[in-house]
Order: sequence, then structure tokens, then C-alpha cells
Amino acid sequence: MAETRESSSGVRAGSPEPGDGLFSRRAAVWIARWLPVVAVALAVRSSGVPEGVTPEGWWFACVFAATIVGFLTRPLPMGPMVLVALAVLLAVGAFGHGAEAVERMLAGFADATVWLVVAAFLLSGTVVRTGLGRRVALWLISKLGRTTLGLGYSIAGAELILGPIIPSNTARGGGVMFPVVNGLAQALGADPYNERRRTGGYLVLCGSHANLVAAAMFFTGMAANPQLGNFAAADLGVSWTWTTWLAGSWLPGIVSMSLLPALLYWIHRPELTHSPEARREARRELQAMGPCTARQVALAVLLAALVAAWASEPVHGVHAAGVALAGIAVILILGLDRWLDFTADRGAWDALMWLGGLVAMAEQLQRQGVMRWFAAQIEQQVGGFTGVWAALLVGLAYFFSMYGFSMLTGHIMAMASVLFVVAKAAGAPPMLVAAVISYFSNLCGCLTNYSTGQVVIYSGLGYVSTPRWFAIGLAVGVFHLAVWLGVGMPYWRMLGWW
Amino acid sequence: MAETRESSSGVRAGSPEPGDGLFSRRAAVWIARWLPVVAVALAVRSSGVPEGVTPEGWWFACVFAATIVGFLTRPLPMGPMVLVALAVLLAVGAFGHGAEAVERMLAGFADATVWLVVAAFLLSGTVVRTGLGRRVALWLISKLGRTTLGLGYSIAGAELILGPIIPSNTARGGGVMFPVVNGLAQALGADPYNERRRTGGYLVLCGSHANLVAAAMFFTGMAANPQLGNFAAADLGVSWTWTTWLAGSWLPGIVSMSLLPALLYWIHRPELTHSPEARREARRELQAMGPCTARQVALAVLLAALVAAWASEPVHGVHAAGVALAGIAVILILGLDRWLDFTADRGAWDALMWLGGLVAMAEQLQRQGVMRWFAAQIEQQVGGFTGVWAALLVGLAYFFSMYGFSMLTGHIMAMASVLFVVAKAAGAPPMLVAAVISYFSNLCGCLTNYSTGQVVIYSGLGYVSTPRWFAIGLAVGVFHLAVWLGVGMPYWRMLGWW
Repeated sequence: MAETRESSSGVRAGSPEPGDGLFSRRAAVWIARWLPVVAVALAVRSSGVPEGVTPEGWWFACVFAATIVGFLTRPLPMGPMVLVALAVLLAVGAFGHGAEAVERMLAGFADATVWLVVAAFLLSGTVVRTGLGRRVALWLISKLGRTTLGLGYSIAGAELILGPIIPSNTARGGGVMFPVVNGLAQALGADPYNERRRTGGYLVLCGSHANLVAAAMFFTGMAANPQLGNFAAADLGVSWTWTTWLAGSWLPGIVSMSLLPALLYWIHRPELTHSPEARREARRELQAMGPCTARQVALAVLLAALVAAWASEPVHGVHAAGVALAGIAVILILGLDRWLDFTADRGAWDALMWLGGLVAMAEQLQRQGVMRWFAAQIEQQVGGFTGVWAALLVGLAYFFSMYGFSMLTGHIMAMASVLFVVAKAAGAPPMLVAAVISYFSNLCGCLTNYSTGQVVIYSGLGYVSTPRWFAIGLAVGVFHLAVWLGVGMPYWRMLGWW
Repeated sequence: MAETRESSSGVRAGSPEPGDGLFSRRAAVWIARWLPVVAVALAVRSSGVPEGVTPEGWWFACVFAATIVGFLTRPLPMGPMVLVALAVLLAVGAFGHGAEAVERMLAGFADATVWLVVAAFLLSGTVVRTGLGRRVALWLISKLGRTTLGLGYSIAGAELILGPIIPSNTARGGGVMFPVVNGLAQALGADPYNERRRTGGYLVLCGSHANLVAAAMFFTGMAANPQLGNFAAADLGVSWTWTTWLAGSWLPGIVSMSLLPALLYWIHRPELTHSPEARREARRELQAMGPCTARQVALAVLLAALVAAWASEPVHGVHAAGVALAGIAVILILGLDRWLDFTADRGAWDALMWLGGLVAMAEQLQRQGVMRWFAAQIEQQVGGFTGVWAALLVGLAYFFSMYGFSMLTGHIMAMASVLFVVAKAAGAPPMLVAAVISYFSNLCGCLTNYSTGQVVIYSGLGYVSTPRWFAIGLAVGVFHLAVWLGVGMPYWRMLGWW
């Protein structure tokens, strides 16, 4: 109420501050931020619907492109940007007509991965509120925290260990690692909107990018990786299994993991580099915390059970999102946390809105032929190339096409199979194609802040601005290409894959 | 963090307060609240799967019944109760296995009505934050607020006027009326957890129950009412249109509306009965607020546009939920409210969780044959009755079966058609059956606090405890039966319907 009165009285007083006139500075900023969004929408719209794409599909291409631009120019936060996109698509009839149109628009809100992200937010809130995250983080700092770089390496090490165990990269990154990384940042005195922002940012970047390397290294490092094995068998006629996957990935993976924390340290240098003081302080605070509370012990046991349940998905068949939501139910039954605190978790509901909306759009992009058209464009580009060059070109196109996807799984489902066929037709070596596409399927998640659940969660903390996240993502992308092709290609040659 | 420390140190200090021992008072309460839930679950479970119901279906019947009991004994708030129910159903395999099981479990979170409820929460938050709701409420009080009873009647009058215009009872009750009623309660100094709780409760009850009477009066008073016209034509062979509907409903409807505010006043007497002071105060505050702000005017225009869009659904075909979400998008584009405030709207996300979960369960109750079995039970009961008595008995069974449904629409879709067939076979007069089932389809929403979107929203404010909401609901239910059968039956006889 106070705020309302203030703003209303401000208007009545006719104060000469900027922001009141029709062409005030605020209005100019508003226009400057919307302009690129509208321009891209108009440009795509006026370019004519390509063959094979439905008119509705082209609306999706148009609004999706404009939304991605909006993520960068930020006339609105991501949640409202997606909501506006959905509203426009509904209004122009791109979702169809009648009750079914709204159902299609809302489809993403029932998506399992979206709810895994929501559950990860909620779980990590409990880890924070019970003090367990802080306890683990303080312990890590007291043991490994001589330097911030050391913390970066310990995050990467944890991802490497958990990589083969937890088959959902979002459960691993968002559910297990994120609460610890978040606790680490807070324990080092980092604040997204204040002091030591870059220190928090460094830890978050390590967590997010190391997660993707771990995902790329293991056949069970990401939920949709096994699907690539099926595609490779069907489209390329090769056996692409847990062991062959690792045979090709372990060397570039190890190299990548051992350079990544240092690279990020160089790109996004934390203010706090040495922290002997932080280490002593951590020990003191750990002592002051006293022994574990009953709530902390119960939560730790529950989290261990969740990790076991995630790891044994092939046995019981319950999707990681179901496991996570069941975990939250247990937390509530045991009274380890309060429902009030869950419903007040703004980050969770923000992610639900924008990720759910993007998933609905991505689904339609695929159904309406836009993705097939996009693959055909790549096929044309690759046309003149053959053999190894075709494999590389297809791989690069696949890697950077991730800019247009909001989910690693969606990217794989939409494009991997098509590109396997394209590359095979161009005479590329099958094992090389399987390797490049498989590893890139995970590594390409580095490019944006909407590529996969854990990236959404880490970047959502706000330690790194969106434009900067994209810039660092591109740099890490180039690094991945250099390592995985520079080290990988000669090594895969040794393996006889080309 | 402070809270964590307090509770942990409390445990370490070994304080002799109740709540620490193994069989402490708190533990006893916990057990006493869970016991009925578990008992009902076990009772249903051990009763053996009826013929025609799948084993999975019987799990749903079992957990659903236990959940409804849990809503009353409240071992947990409704959101977590539903989450626990979903987790149990997933764990026992009732949703099936693999990725599809989780998708079925999450299906309700993509339901249009669920999102209409969420959108209504978000919209009404904006109406409150801009001060528009307060302004309208103050104006209403200054004009009609000599007594609290007068306010009750003005709410009923507004519902009666809007009834034929806005074809979604949730959009009407939750989107338009709720913000005003909420503003009224606040302006009268009512607080759900403090002073003048019953005053707020009275207004909320008027809003909620008057909405259902308006829904029952008009063919376009509720989203699924037109479907009853289709069923009546197909199953009973009668023409049941906008005009025939109103021909039968106007008289009992008017009687019902003119008695309802007084009845509720008698059952749930507000502390504040006369408010000349409130009226003077309202005038003073209205003057102090000054002229409308630009934000308030813009929001009022937008809300009028939303009402127009809801009313013209038959023309443009966009579901009310799509209209509401588009309205929120416009609010954000124009900067009338902040995304931060939307994501902080705990009520909206609470409703999403529990209503979405219930909808998923209701869908499976229907798919797995439980509802068909339930209809068959009714058919058996009705067996010995014929003619008018069969119509009345079917009507009563239909009315009270609403206890098992989380949505008026779901109730209609699951049972109306079946009961039309049952009643016709028993030789009941077709027009009488059409009338009774149609009107009861809406009136029966009075029984619970989970029957339809607006009820969820009003009761969610917390002015009326859940057990009391059920008790008052039953009383209003008996009142509806008395009025609609007592006044309706002779009148429908005059119309020649039996």
C-alpha cells in the first residue's frame, strides 16, 4: 500500500524527475529493450513460411526467436517474457483454437523435467533452511578451501564422482550439488546483488559447466544419453554402449575437467582468491554450530536415499522427477520443513513458469515441422562435404543449434537421429559421428542459461548477469570444441574410429 | 538461519517442554491426525477390488478417500496432503511405470481450470497491490455498507448480474468478485488469524455460495453447463437450451439468492453487524486516496476487457484460462505490476499444487473405472424406485456424490450422462431429470472447499476453518435442496415438466 501511495502521489505532484514525461528516459529504455524483440519477430514473420513448415509452426519460430532475443535485451524478466510469448501465440491462433489450444499452451507445466527443476529448487531450499548445506559447505571450506580455485576443483571432482551414479544431470547438479555450491557461496560472504558477486559467480559457473562435462563423459550421465545409443544402432548401425561411450570420452573428459576450473578462474576471476581467513572462520563457525541436529541427520539420510533412488532408476523405473517429489513429500510428513517455506520459494515458481512455457513452445516447434526444416538447412550446408569433414561440420552445426533449444533432451530427440542419417549419407565414419554427436549433445548445454535444468537453477541465483552468462558460455563452448576435437580426434583415430 | 539455530539449540538444551519426548503431546497430535487417514486407506484397501475397477483404480479410490479425510483432520495442509497422495500412488505403481507414470501424475498441472485458478490469484493480487480493489470496496461500503448484511446482499446482487455475462464461474468468482470481496474484508478490518475473522468469513461465504447459485441459474453460468444440454438431448431426447434452462431456474434461483445472505448471516454471524462508523471511515479514506492513479485506471480498463473476453468465449473460442494469462502478460508489459510480486504469491502456488494433484487423481478415478462402478452402485440403490421418485433419488445421489469430486466439470462429465440414462430407464419424467441434474450440477459445489476454482480461492483466504467450511457447506446444501425442490417441484409441475 505504501508503495502505491508513493508512486501515485509522485505522479500527482508532477515532479520533474526523469521517468515522467512521455519520451522520458525510462520510456526510452523500455522502447530500446523491446525494439530488438519486435524487430526479430517482424523479420522472421515477413520472411515467408518455408516449405514443410506449417503456418502455425512459423509463428512459433518467429515468437521463439524473439523470446530468445528478449532473454538478452531483458525488457522483462524471463518468466514474463515467456508468458507474453505464450499469450501472443495463443492470440494469433498458433496453438489452434478452442479448449485444446489452451491445453497445448499449458502442456509444458506437466513436463517431468520441468518439475524436476521445481523439486530441485524446493529441496535445496530445505537443505539451506535446515543448515545442512551450510554445514557441508563449511566442512568443505575447512578442508579444501585454502584457495577459491581449490573450491572450484573440489566442485568439479564431486561432479566427476557423482556423474556415473546419478543418471539425471539436473538431479545431480540441481538436487545434490547446487545446495552445496549455494552454501559455499554464502559461506564465503558472496551476495548476488552486493559484495563478492564474482566469487559466487565463479563457484556457480564451476558447478554448472562441470556438470555438463560429467554428463558428456558417461552413458548414464544424462537422462537422454541412452537414447543416443538407440539412435546410433538404428541410424548408423554401430554398437554404442556404456563401455564404448566411456572408451571415447574418458581422455578428453579428464583433460576438460582438469582445465575447466582454471579457465573459469581466468575468465571470471573471483574477488576472493585466497581464503585462509575464510578457512579459519569456517572452522570456528563449524564448532559454533555444534553437533548435527536431528533434522540435519534425517535430511542427510533422506538425500542419500534420493541419490540411491536416482541411481537405480533403471531398476525401479520411476523418473527422477517422481523421486524428487516423493522426497519432498517425506520431508513434509516428517516435518523437516514447512509447506509455507516451499510455497514462498519464488525461484521455483519462476522456473516453472518460464521453463514450462519454453517446453510447450519447443514441443510445437518440433510438431509443426520447424525442426525438420532446420535440419534440412543443415543438410544443405553439409552437402559439399564428405567423410570426416561432414562429421565435423554436422557436429558443429548440432553444437550451436543448441541456442534454439530449451532442453538437452529435446535437442537430442529433435536432431540427433536426423543428423546421424545426414552424416552417414555423406560418408562420415559411423563411430566418429556417434562420438561427436553424443558428447556434443551434453557439452553444448554450456551455451545458454536455459539449456538444461541445472543451468537454469545455477544461473537463476543471479551471481552472473544473463549477457555475461552467454559470453562465458560461448568461451566455454570454444574451449570444449578445442579439447574434445583437439585431444579427442587424434585419440579416436588411435581407437580406429576414423 | 536464526530460526534453525533456535530450534537446534532447543533440542540440545533438552528443555522439558511438551514436544520433545517420544510420546509427547505433539507426537500424540501427529498420530491422532494421521490415524483416521491411514485407517480409511486401509479400510478401502482391504475391502477388495470391485468388479469393473482396475487394481490401479482401487488404489486411487483408496488414496483419494484418505486424502479427503486428511483435508478434515489436517495432519498437513492441503498442498502437502495431495503431494503425499501423489507420491504414494506413484510408489505403489498406480500411475503405471516408467516415464509415463510421472507424466500421468503431473497431468493436472497442465489443466486449464487449474491455471484459471492460479491466474485468478495472480490477477487479484494486482487488484490489491494497485489499490483498485480497496477503492472499489471502499466505494461499495460508502454506498451500501450501512450493515454487514447489506454488503452480503450487494455481493449476491453482483453475482446475479455477472452470472449470465461471464460463462466461467471461476473467472467470475475468482477473477472479478474475489478481489472486491477480499478488499471489502480488509477494509472492514477483518484478519483471517486475528480480529473480525467471522466478519471476513461471512463476506467470503456470501461470495462463494452466491456464485454457485448464479452458476445454477444460467445455461452460461458455468463452463460445463452447455454440455448438460448436449447430454439431455442425447440421453433424454429433450431440448434443454438457454431459455428452457432459465425458465426452470429463475424462480427457485431468485428465492435462493434472496434468502442466502440472511441464512449465512444467521449461521456465521459477523462480529461487525452495523457499520455506520465503517461507512464514514470509508468515505474519509476514499477522499484521502485522491483521484484514481494511472495504474488503477489502466487496470480497470484491462479488467473490463477481460470480462468482455470471458463473456465472448463462444465467439473467439479462447478458454477463460488463456484469456486470464494473456491479461497477466499485458499487466507485465505495461508495468502495472511486478513479476517479483507474482512469484511471491504463495496462495497461487499452493492452489496449483493441490488442485493440480487432485485433478490428476480425478482423471485416473474416471479412467480406471471407479466412477463407472460408483454410478452402478447408485443405479442399484435406485432400482426399486420409479417415476418422479427415481428422478429425486438420482438427483440426491448426484448432489452428494460431489464430495468425491474436485471439479464441477469433472463431476458433470463423469456422472450426468450415466444418471440421465439410469433415470430414463426408471421411467422418470425427462424434463424433470434434466432440470434437477442440471441445477444440482452447480449447487452441489457448496458441499466442500475443493469443488470448484472460486471455492478454492475464497476458502484459501483462511477466514473459515476447513471443518467449519464443510459444516456450513452441508447446511447450505440442505437449504438448496429445500428451496430448489420445495419451490421448484410445484413450479416445474406448473410448467408441465412432470
